[in-house]
Amino acid sequence: MNVYPYILSGGSGTRLWPLSRRSRPKQLQSILAARTLLQQALARAQRAGDEPPVVIANQSHRFTIAEQAAETGVTDLEILLEPEGRNTAPAAIIAALHCQQRTSTDDPVLLLMPSDHRITDEEAFARAVKRAADAAREDAIVLFGIKPDRAETAYGYIKPSAEGACTGVRGIDQFVEKPDAPTAAIYVKSGDYLWNSGIFVFAAQTLLREAERYCPETLAACRKALKDAKADLDFVRLDGAAFSRCQNISLDHAIMEKTDAASVLAADFPWSDLGSWDAVWQQAPRDSEGNSLSGDAVVEDCQDSLIQSSQGRLVAGLGLRDVAVIDTPDALLVLSRDRAQDVRQLVDRLAQTKRPEIEDHRRVHRPWGWYESIDSGANHQVKILTINPGGKLSLQSHKHRSEHWVVVRGTAQVTLDKDVRQVSENESIYVPAGMVHRLENPGKTPAQIIEVQTGSYFGEDDIVRLDDIYGRLPHDGDENESGN
Amino acid sequence: MNVYPYILSGGSGTRLWPLSRRSRPKQLQSILAARTLLQQALARAQRAGDEPPVVIANQSHRFTIAEQAAETGVTDLEILLEPEGRNTAPAAIIAALHCQQRTSTDDPVLLLMPSDHRITDEEAFARAVKRAADAAREDAIVLFGIKPDRAETAYGYIKPSAEGACTGVRGIDQFVEKPDAPTAAIYVKSGDYLWNSGIFVFAAQTLLREAERYCPETLAACRKALKDAKADLDFVRLDGAAFSRCQNISLDHAIMEKTDAASVLAADFPWSDLGSWDAVWQQAPRDSEGNSLSGDAVVEDCQDSLIQSSQGRLVAGLGLRDVAVIDTPDALLVLSRDRAQDVRQLVDRLAQTKRPEIEDHRRVHRPWGWYESIDSGANHQVKILTINPGGKLSLQSHKHRSEHWVVVRGTAQVTLDKDVRQVSENESIYVPAGMVHRLENPGKTPAQIIEVQTGSYFGEDDIVRLDDIYGRLPHDGDENESGN
Repeated sequence: MNVYPYILSGGSGTRLWPLSRRSRPKQLQSILAARTLLQQALARAQRAGDEPPVVIANQSHRFTIAEQAAETGVTDLEILLEPEGRNTAPAAIIAALHCQQRTSTDDPVLLLMPSDHRITDEEAFARAVKRAADAAREDAIVLFGIKPDRAETAYGYIKPSAEGACTGVRGIDQFVEKPDAPTAAIYVKSGDYLWNSGIFVFAAQTLLREAERYCPETLAACRKALKDAKADLDFVRLDGAAFSRCQNISLDHAIMEKTDAASVLAADFPWSDLGSWDAVWQQAPRDSEGNSLSGDAVVEDCQDSLIQSSQGRLVAGLGLRDVAVIDTPDALLVLSRDRAQDVRQLVDRLAQTKRPEIEDHRRVHRPWGWYESIDSGANHQVKILTINPGGKLSLQSHKHRSEHWVVVRGTAQVTLDKDVRQVSENESIYVPAGMVHRLENPGKTPAQIIEVQTGSYFGEDDIVRLDDIYGRLPHDGDENESGN
Repeated sequence: MNVYPYILSGGSGTRLWPLSRRSRPKQLQSILAARTLLQQALARAQRAGDEPPVVIANQSHRFTIAEQAAETGVTDLEILLEPEGRNTAPAAIIAALHCQQRTSTDDPVLLLMPSDHRITDEEAFARAVKRAADAAREDAIVLFGIKPDRAETAYGYIKPSAEGACTGVRGIDQFVEKPDAPTAAIYVKSGDYLWNSGIFVFAAQTLLREAERYCPETLAACRKALKDAKADLDFVRLDGAAFSRCQNISLDHAIMEKTDAASVLAADFPWSDLGSWDAVWQQAPRDSEGNSLSGDAVVEDCQDSLIQSSQGRLVAGLGLRDVAVIDTPDALLVLSRDRAQDVRQLVDRLAQTKRPEIEDHRRVHRPWGWYESIDSGANHQVKILTINPGGKLSLQSHKHRSEHWVVVRGTAQVTLDKDVRQVSENESIYVPAGMVHRLENPGKTPAQIIEVQTGSYFGEDDIVRLDDIYGRLPHDGDENESGN
């Protein structure tokens, strides 16, 4: 009766904009640590579970997730792709069904956890999962509760019942949606409430039985989505038509608030969801003035402020109190720390005008490496491209632009029409408009290329893609996969 | 008895960092207007004076001043170069001596004005100068006083005497250095004090007579510095050895506080020295919430804040009160508006660690045009260069780097050793390390080039300069003129 970890990589982390972007949200970012939150979640899952973790993710993040897993030594990660986000109930059901498929026993226990939390004590987390798993084997669906240390209005609250107090795993009297500040203050003062962490431990059998009872259509849709799933390279794509019939609902609303199996275990590990820039400041190491600085930041008489610089830009703060400055190469956010929850509204406003700064960072990651636009004018665009060893851009041509490539690091293999040649460091090559070409790195070290485009139009959609080893086809409707 | 305008371009505008930098200070920047402050001063001087203006400037700004003058149609501007800044007394004396040389009459009247003020009503300014000139012809050294509208501590104050009240030009009872806030408040309330604008009108004869009396050594040093001045292209370089013997002192301290000729005329034109980001906010057009936004800025629930974005970076403000955000390509300043005077200390601190962000903007101006570093790595640097029509980089070579040039706009003429060729739009050329080369634009439109440097060292000092049409020699000790 081993524990099978399932990691949900579904969140958008909107409140951590401009660091978090749709194409590379919070869980795929490094925040207060060298590893990304997903990488930390993978390590935590490996420690707490007995079997290899599985990630359930948005299909547009699949290459980044595989790459980040590989960076930490996880090369055989199974990744289930949701065609669209449908909240946690369908994901939990898919996880339970998938887990039953994997194992010969029919009562495996699952650890279902978000990918974007910060839990610095892996050992304590593993111990807590063990205790929860014991209760799960006795038919409990266990949710971790967090002892509140402030009147937070961004979380749901849980009121445990008195029963089971001696084992620690208790029933649940009440689920409360995000309360207002006075209510939250009362909850915290009473000592009777816990924050809802969104981390669950349950037996597959239990969850599926309760799903059958409380959301049978969604269960049926999940069964079908998994049965008709298709392999795509190393990924498993759930069937879109079936999955779209799932209700868009959280596990709390769909099952937990209704079932007698719902249980809560008060966590004894330090926890933060890093849900806002204020939460990041709370968790960050701070100097004697209460400031947390990262990157190339200088302050003069500032207090209780968070300053994050990126890419070596100098950021100077003078006379600031309770301010956060989040600087990224193409977008800067300056906010009063007490307004950290309202970043969401700001981002919604920016989304209405289709600002690209909501979608992508200036550095755009691709399965073969990354590129970044470093300059553009009426007649030109300059990019830097880094191609990983073995990376291969699609075979393509452009109608409206010519390209000059200068290799500044490593060696690139260039296909121009029928001709294939090696271009070494400090060599250049010219690709006229209309010519079919491909760029790849057959070497053992990354190759870096400066690409100078000249012409009249430089949109990522001026690509006729003829072949692609990553299965990114011109018409697969994958809006994040136009371009190189 | 015409009025001869002399414009002092000596200030550093430190408190407007990071917009103002040593190589391109405040007066050479556009602030709240399309034209730079110097360009506005030139126009104002032309309007108020009867003769063409002369600029007295730091030699390191000479090409930019000439270029900015030419942009506004002033192609024959006389520019006197100070080898070093020695405050306003030597500059005023040099102006008076120079003015006597220019004219056959020996009592010309000078308008001596800073280059970095904002005076939006040119007409009122011209009228005020006319009145001051009448008094100057009667032997007064007239200083414009500004009626204070707040208890500013960043300015000197003047107390006019009662005499001359009917003509408006009055004697001066007292000069006060920058007062503390309570004293400033008393001055403003009393109605007896004016701000010291630093704008003077005087007859050359009067000033030189008083200089002979109160600072004869400086007068002698100025005479010698002007007598031994050397022509350099279109510029006049004052003699360094002689000029260095001038006292480093303001005209107020050297003469005005001592002479009976000192007079003040209360200005009836709107005036600001744009001395700090707070002063800029005060002068800026603001929305109903009191915010002044420029560039790509978005705010949500901000009040009384100043946000300046540059180069199309998105700057978002959330919940800010009385904050200024000044974003430039390589440095960002976020400050509480009431600390605007303390930017100076911050910049002093940055100067101690020789931060390049104090010296230059990312875009570096040269007599032939400008360049900007757009990317750099261990093995490469990428620059964009714009060469003005007729512009010509020095004949040079590099020891440690090769260069690939791609012309993205216009046509460049390239000299490689003995070979001279045209390189047109969408063509490229390679310059190996060690090869003597020159880049120029013989055409009628600007030429734009992407330069990809590869090698091991990319400092601007890896240039062996063999010839230069702008007289920038390798050993002229001009620290701002290494590089292209």
